[in-house]
Amino acid sequence: MSFTIHGLPVSQGIAIGHAHLVSRALLEVNHYHVAERHVADEVRRLDDAVAAVRDELGALKLTAASSHAHGEVGAFVDLQLIMLADPLLVDAARTLIQERRCNAEWAMVQQMEHLVAQFEQIEDSYLRERKADVVQVVERVVKSLIGHPGHLPPKRRDGLGTIIVAHDLSPADTIGFRDHNIAGFLTDIGGPTSHTAIVARTLAIPAVVGLHRIRELVEENELIIIDGTLGIVIVDPDEAIVEEYRLRRSELELKRSRLKLLRDTPSSTLDGRAIALLANIEGPGDVTHIRAANADGVGLYRTEFLFMGREDLPGEDEQFEAYRTVLKALAGRPVTIRTFDVGADKMLSMPNQREEPNPALGLRAIRFSLAEPQMFRTQLRALLRASAYGQLRIMIPMVSHVQELDQALTMIALARDELLAERHRIADRVEIGAMIEVPAAALAIGMFKKRVSFLSLGTNDLIQYTLAIDRTDDAVVHLYDPLHPAVLKLISGTIQAGTRLGMSVSVCGEMAGDPNYTRLLLGMGLREFSMHPTNVLEIKQQLLHADYSELAPRVQRILRMEEPARLREAVMRLAN
Amino acid sequence: MSFTIHGLPVSQGIAIGHAHLVSRALLEVNHYHVAERHVADEVRRLDDAVAAVRDELGALKLTAASSHAHGEVGAFVDLQLIMLADPLLVDAARTLIQERRCNAEWAMVQQMEHLVAQFEQIEDSYLRERKADVVQVVERVVKSLIGHPGHLPPKRRDGLGTIIVAHDLSPADTIGFRDHNIAGFLTDIGGPTSHTAIVARTLAIPAVVGLHRIRELVEENELIIIDGTLGIVIVDPDEAIVEEYRLRRSELELKRSRLKLLRDTPSSTLDGRAIALLANIEGPGDVTHIRAANADGVGLYRTEFLFMGREDLPGEDEQFEAYRTVLKALAGRPVTIRTFDVGADKMLSMPNQREEPNPALGLRAIRFSLAEPQMFRTQLRALLRASAYGQLRIMIPMVSHVQELDQALTMIALARDELLAERHRIADRVEIGAMIEVPAAALAIGMFKKRVSFLSLGTNDLIQYTLAIDRTDDAVVHLYDPLHPAVLKLISGTIQAGTRLGMSVSVCGEMAGDPNYTRLLLGMGLREFSMHPTNVLEIKQQLLHADYSELAPRVQRILRMEEPARLREAVMRLAN
Repeated sequence: MSFTIHGLPVSQGIAIGHAHLVSRALLEVNHYHVAERHVADEVRRLDDAVAAVRDELGALKLTAASSHAHGEVGAFVDLQLIMLADPLLVDAARTLIQERRCNAEWAMVQQMEHLVAQFEQIEDSYLRERKADVVQVVERVVKSLIGHPGHLPPKRRDGLGTIIVAHDLSPADTIGFRDHNIAGFLTDIGGPTSHTAIVARTLAIPAVVGLHRIRELVEENELIIIDGTLGIVIVDPDEAIVEEYRLRRSELELKRSRLKLLRDTPSSTLDGRAIALLANIEGPGDVTHIRAANADGVGLYRTEFLFMGREDLPGEDEQFEAYRTVLKALAGRPVTIRTFDVGADKMLSMPNQREEPNPALGLRAIRFSLAEPQMFRTQLRALLRASAYGQLRIMIPMVSHVQELDQALTMIALARDELLAERHRIADRVEIGAMIEVPAAALAIGMFKKRVSFLSLGTNDLIQYTLAIDRTDDAVVHLYDPLHPAVLKLISGTIQAGTRLGMSVSVCGEMAGDPNYTRLLLGMGLREFSMHPTNVLEIKQQLLHADYSELAPRVQRILRMEEPARLREAVMRLAN
Repeated sequence: MSFTIHGLPVSQGIAIGHAHLVSRALLEVNHYHVAERHVADEVRRLDDAVAAVRDELGALKLTAASSHAHGEVGAFVDLQLIMLADPLLVDAARTLIQERRCNAEWAMVQQMEHLVAQFEQIEDSYLRERKADVVQVVERVVKSLIGHPGHLPPKRRDGLGTIIVAHDLSPADTIGFRDHNIAGFLTDIGGPTSHTAIVARTLAIPAVVGLHRIRELVEENELIIIDGTLGIVIVDPDEAIVEEYRLRRSELELKRSRLKLLRDTPSSTLDGRAIALLANIEGPGDVTHIRAANADGVGLYRTEFLFMGREDLPGEDEQFEAYRTVLKALAGRPVTIRTFDVGADKMLSMPNQREEPNPALGLRAIRFSLAEPQMFRTQLRALLRASAYGQLRIMIPMVSHVQELDQALTMIALARDELLAERHRIADRVEIGAMIEVPAAALAIGMFKKRVSFLSLGTNDLIQYTLAIDRTDDAVVHLYDPLHPAVLKLISGTIQAGTRLGMSVSVCGEMAGDPNYTRLLLGMGLREFSMHPTNVLEIKQQLLHADYSELAPRVQRILRMEEPARLREAVMRLAN
């Protein structure tokens, strides 16, 4: 029977495919014997799975850290890492495999049950609840064991892809589905900025979230249509409906193909104002995306990937290579590398780790780098050494006070002197810039004058701090609003003041890659947009049809509006 | 041997007294037998102590919640409350008293050791560490058992007070010392906004914190001088030094007596600008302080005290009485009552409680009230019923979006209609106002026009959000800065815009009660200062000697300064 469900559209496009229900792995565990000669292999299988889970948890923690949501997730991941290192769990499972010649999944579940029973004997209710953590980490290991290829969807021959239907997807889950002909994602929970949503947009796969009990309504293998633009999910559609959506999908694909034709068109407005379209990247692996979009450079190179799946700090040479690779690949186009945007929670190896009550308002980014001068010095040395291979721009994240900026500049100067004394080659000129993501910085642009040469608006964090809301917190995410008059005032004020004081200003938050805001930002005077490489061509198309001289006065009028509803309406009219 | 130590001055004044070292209570526990006929009394002693600790933890949690520091403290208190409810702890101790006829302290410590041993057998390191929580909660109970009068200082006959020397003091500790002739506080840890500091200032007792290992350097009963203004601690001073400090103390006392003479002087500047000096209060108990200072009204009545030491919500009648008492006592002067500024963590009885990753950026204050309409409706009804007994002003905390304000106004109108239909008496006019403590609100004052009639700047939170720092987090507290150019821009912008749009504007954050900022705020155009009642006379003295017409243009010049160091220097010159 065909029926339609509505959810939250989080990744555009139309998908037609067959449902694959992702269920909890523990239900699927069977027991079997392993031949004597395969016991060592089975132990290795377990060890590999444990290592994979450790990496997965590291990645999870990293994603959480960079989203400033790390408080809760970080604690939870730490706990799972501790469980994973508990000899009673993995060591004992290993012994079980050797002694009983059983499969690794079963050994893990046996040990889990043993531990859970131990927990249940504890009389204290708080401690008793900790058994959920054991179950979750064992589930991860079992998933990893049976997952390759067990939990991945079966290959299909009808040319249709697979629609993943899950309660929720972790970044690790989602990454695991790559290259498996996934057509779409549907989840019970999540919002526009949940991991599922972000990964789906990055992979350009349609997704609808917040469907509540979708797993109970859909059967394995059932045909499903997703409209990721409107948030519509049609289960078991009629053939006529499928045909209709096939046509719509073709139109969208056509539109995408047309966008590709813009690759080599210079990006400028109807009235000839040149606009730089830059890419936000996570590491050297994103160079191919930059090339596909022919971006004018890198506006934000996040360096936190260097911490991924490891406990120690990346060394100077390793960092140097990671930076140099991108600088060389960009062949003289600017590459803006942001220094580490991490907090103490990211550094598993650090002594005296402590939980912060509000990590998003704590020791992070430049604050953390200045508190860990050895780590910061290593990064600055690697950056300056890489500067010889292209046009490097160093960007300092989360500056709020002038003394932070002055300390960072002093450390850069010291690193330069050191390297020159050691006869390293360094570019004559390395631009230094600051990220504007704290309201205090946006309100005191004067303090950046003569200290830095460029500014980059991190709108995601700027919006969070300005509105005092954490957008990873479901309870307040509805208050996240890029069009709040205060937010627009800060963005436009930064662009105006920065430009007036002779600094170049870019936007590298999500607003820069959203076509709904292109004309608004253009009209504010923005000349550098930095975004995920997959958004570059769509934004270019917007710019090619926009007239700056007509937009600028309209945007000024909008910025003077005091009533939020009127303002929002005016911005919407601007975009269409 | 006399010596001097330097620490962080957090509460002004000079104290001369004898050291009383507050040590950990568990070291002091002895075992003794209780006579058969006293066993029931002993059990009651234990129950009373447990009840006292439960209240103490409730109070601690409340203080934490109102300081937006509740994440860490809240979780820690919850854990201790769970431990306290654990039958293995208190029930078992009770049985022990009955069966072995032992004293309650010893029974608790026995059970603690039993539990700790159980914890130590747990192989998991994370869980093993939880034993610290058991130890801490038992320590609280034992302190409460032996504390009345055990841990309080002995009465002295030489007229000198007692200097409390501790590692740190919880609010509950500090409250316990009230009325015990305490002359000063010295602690190993803490900063200007630690609990010790805040309580010391409230009680007007000199305090120096951050002394690191003061307990090891000082002996019980040793003579000590504290200069709480300069942060100097002199241990075992010579008689000449004592004499010198006696003189200085007399001078300070004289100054305070002179201030008292200002009680009935109208507060206005040299050039005749009338300024309202209002009080921040915590409940009906503070009415005597208001009278002593002859404040012009209440600028901030925090209603969170209603949650103190309880798990359920205060009912309508109970709230009505608490509000009416203050309104009647103020006899027509304005009483600004802030609706609940709490989050989910405060409500122990709420189902589905969850930890927020960044509680300061989460569901708090008006956001929480709108999510709990039944709770909010009860408070609004109680407030409106109380309005018949004085000049009530209702203040909405943490507004950031216009829709929050509109929803709150609708709920107030509904409550009014309900009450009128029920034939309750309500004042014809109840002013509604908003607290400006989120940067978005300060930047979009236009949205308050025609919706509210007054604004009150909560500078403590406004500074935290503007700088994106949590001042309860030791790692970043050094970045807390009321004189950041961005902060001054928001404060002065709010005063100007609010006044221009016909709303009255007050400041109710700590800046309003600090004489260093009086001239600055006055020069910005502020006409309503709201502060702890003990600060009112000192601020009045500042105002009586200030000339608004001379200050206004100077402050305008300061606000245009772009270099933070120059700006700070100019503000300092202004104050002297």
